[in-house]
Amino acid sequence: LQVFSCNSNPSLAKAICEHINIPLGDAQVGKFSDGEIHVKLDESVRGSDVYVIQSTCDPVNQHLMELLVMVDALRRASAGTINVVIPYYGYARQDRKTRARDPITAKLVANLIETAGADRVITMDLHATQIQGFFNIPVDHLVGVPILAQYFKKKGLSDVVVVSPDHGGVIRARRLAERLEAPIAIIDKRRPEPNVAEVMNIVGDVKGKTAIIIDDIIDTAGTITLAANALLEQGAKEVYACCTHPVFSGPAIDRIRDANITEMVVTDTIPLPESKRLDKIKTLSVASLIGEAI
Amino acid sequence: LQVFSCNSNPSLAKAICEHINIPLGDAQVGKFSDGEIHVKLDESVRGSDVYVIQSTCDPVNQHLMELLVMVDALRRASAGTINVVIPYYGYARQDRKTRARDPITAKLVANLIETAGADRVITMDLHATQIQGFFNIPVDHLVGVPILAQYFKKKGLSDVVVVSPDHGGVIRARRLAERLEAPIAIIDKRRPEPNVAEVMNIVGDVKGKTAIIIDDIIDTAGTITLAANALLEQGAKEVYACCTHPVFSGPAIDRIRDANITEMVVTDTIPLPESKRLDKIKTLSVASLIGEAI
Ligand SMILES: Nc1ncnc2c1ncn2[C@@H]1O[C@H](COP(=O)(O)O)[C@@H](O)[C@H]1O
Ligand SMILES: Nc1ncnc2c1ncn2[C@@H]1O[C@H](COP(=O)(O)O)[C@@H](O)[C@H]1O
Repeated sequence: LQVFSCNSNPSLAKAICEHINIPLGDAQVGKFSDGEIHVKLDESVRGSDVYVIQSTCDPVNQHLMELLVMVDALRRASAGTINVVIPYYGYARQDRKTRARDPITAKLVANLIETAGADRVITMDLHATQIQGFFNIPVDHLVGVPILAQYFKKKGLSDVVVVSPDHGGVIRARRLAERLEAPIAIIDKRRPEPNVAEVMNIVGDVKGKTAIIIDDIIDTAGTITLAANALLEQGAKEVYACCTHPVFSGPAIDRIRDANITEMVVTDTIPLPESKRLDKIKTLSVASLIGEAI
Repeated sequence: LQVFSCNSNPSLAKAICEHINIPLGDAQVGKFSDGEIHVKLDESVRGSDVYVIQSTCDPVNQHLMELLVMVDALRRASAGTINVVIPYYGYARQDRKTRARDPITAKLVANLIETAGADRVITMDLHATQIQGFFNIPVDHLVGVPILAQYFKKKGLSDVVVVSPDHGGVIRARRLAERLEAPIAIIDKRRPEPNVAEVMNIVGDVKGKTAIIIDDIIDTAGTITLAANALLEQGAKEVYACCTHPVFSGPAIDRIRDANITEMVVTDTIPLPESKRLDKIKTLSVASLIGEAI
């Protein structure tokens, strides 16, 4: 068993290795002067079960290509099995044609990973669980809910309601609600007429309660900010937010800073650089979860 | 027949369309807030022979992914045939294992392009012509020598010698020499002992002659600068340099500015941004060459 890391999330890779108590594999993933990636494996992998840890987060194309080149190098070095661990799977939101002539990039990425030579994929909280079926190789799909639930349980919040920010996230919200023995509510976004701002109706009772909004990905944090305001207007006492994948692009950090959210709880599938850290953002590690799966 | 362009070389794509006298296809290749690429085809391609123009130059991973997502969108939109035109093929220098456990990224890229769904590839001056064999689909391999030869012929230089900067480039140098009816010389780089600077021996007579160094790719311009000095030391009267692919990364522009080179002649397979333009750099277009091939 050997574990290698590309460049997207070295601290998670280290934590995973500590959990399973083996040293991180000796390899360099660097760049030539013109931006082309080079990979150098500094130890033999012949016949070995190899794991590669790489989230395909921003810069997504570079991180994806690092992973593909690493898999190519491992395959040509006669690795026994190549298991790619993709804690955050980029391009997951391009999972279907929403308009005529759309690409389905989540499927393309699955094909690219197989073409490079991966034998198995371990990933977490795919935006659409159907993406598992985009692969012909085995996919282990891990979920972040137990980690988030454990954190909120420890906090000992009372009179909680778990809120799904859209209809697609209801199952995830229900899973968290079950673990917290709480009811759920759903935000029902509607655009009354074209070019009129969306209205956020809340289905379910939130009055006087502590609301915990849960999503898989928080990207620009627009939805979550509006949802928090809608919940408070409907009488919620306090709003927490949580997600597995803190993409946090564009205006996200400014919005989270200003939002009426007590705490934003995320995991380390995507590392937060210094510039994206706030006191109200709490990061939980998925290292032991992934360590178990390895 | 429809021609689409991704973002690496829009001016070349436009010039190609002008040459074959059709409008550029209507499509947008953009980015979401988190850096993921989105492609929007704004016209039908059903049953059509489609050409996509994209050099995989710096930022290579992004440009490669733009191409792959575009091909995915075209395939799912029922294009008849998908022909990818890659004037500059990135990762071509990673064409073999030079050390144990190296990846062969030029082959990986070929596999990725086929996986996305391309039916045919048109490319130019591959660093290693063997890369044609990395594809299972047809590859049209164009060469820049005729365009460069025509330019130097028009200049009417007298007493020319064509110089290959290494042994790998001799065939290319000979082709240019034939067209200019000139002899060739070869630079024979040798490292007398490890950790001692390379010595540039010149095989062939350059005394009193106008030397034209030819290479496929000029990247950091280190070799070309040293070669020019060696040629002048051996009595060459003047030194020109030319190549098909002006990668020009890192210190390249500073080196070219300072080099003892009268003129650097390149093609537009890779566009030069404002910051990489110098009076002594002359760009020739490959638009008509590619137009003919389409
Ligand atoms: N990286 C991205 N950033 C923002 N929106 C995206 C991204 N990728 C896909 N989308 C869009 O998000 C929508 C799908 O999201 P959803 O309806 O939540 O599954 C589609 O309209 C996509 O075009
Ligand atoms: N993008 C790149 N920039 C600089 N060197 C590279 C690049 N890609 C590959 N190489 C190296 O260039 C050498 C091959 O060049 P060549 O011997 O001219 O075919 C190998 O040692 C590669 O590791």
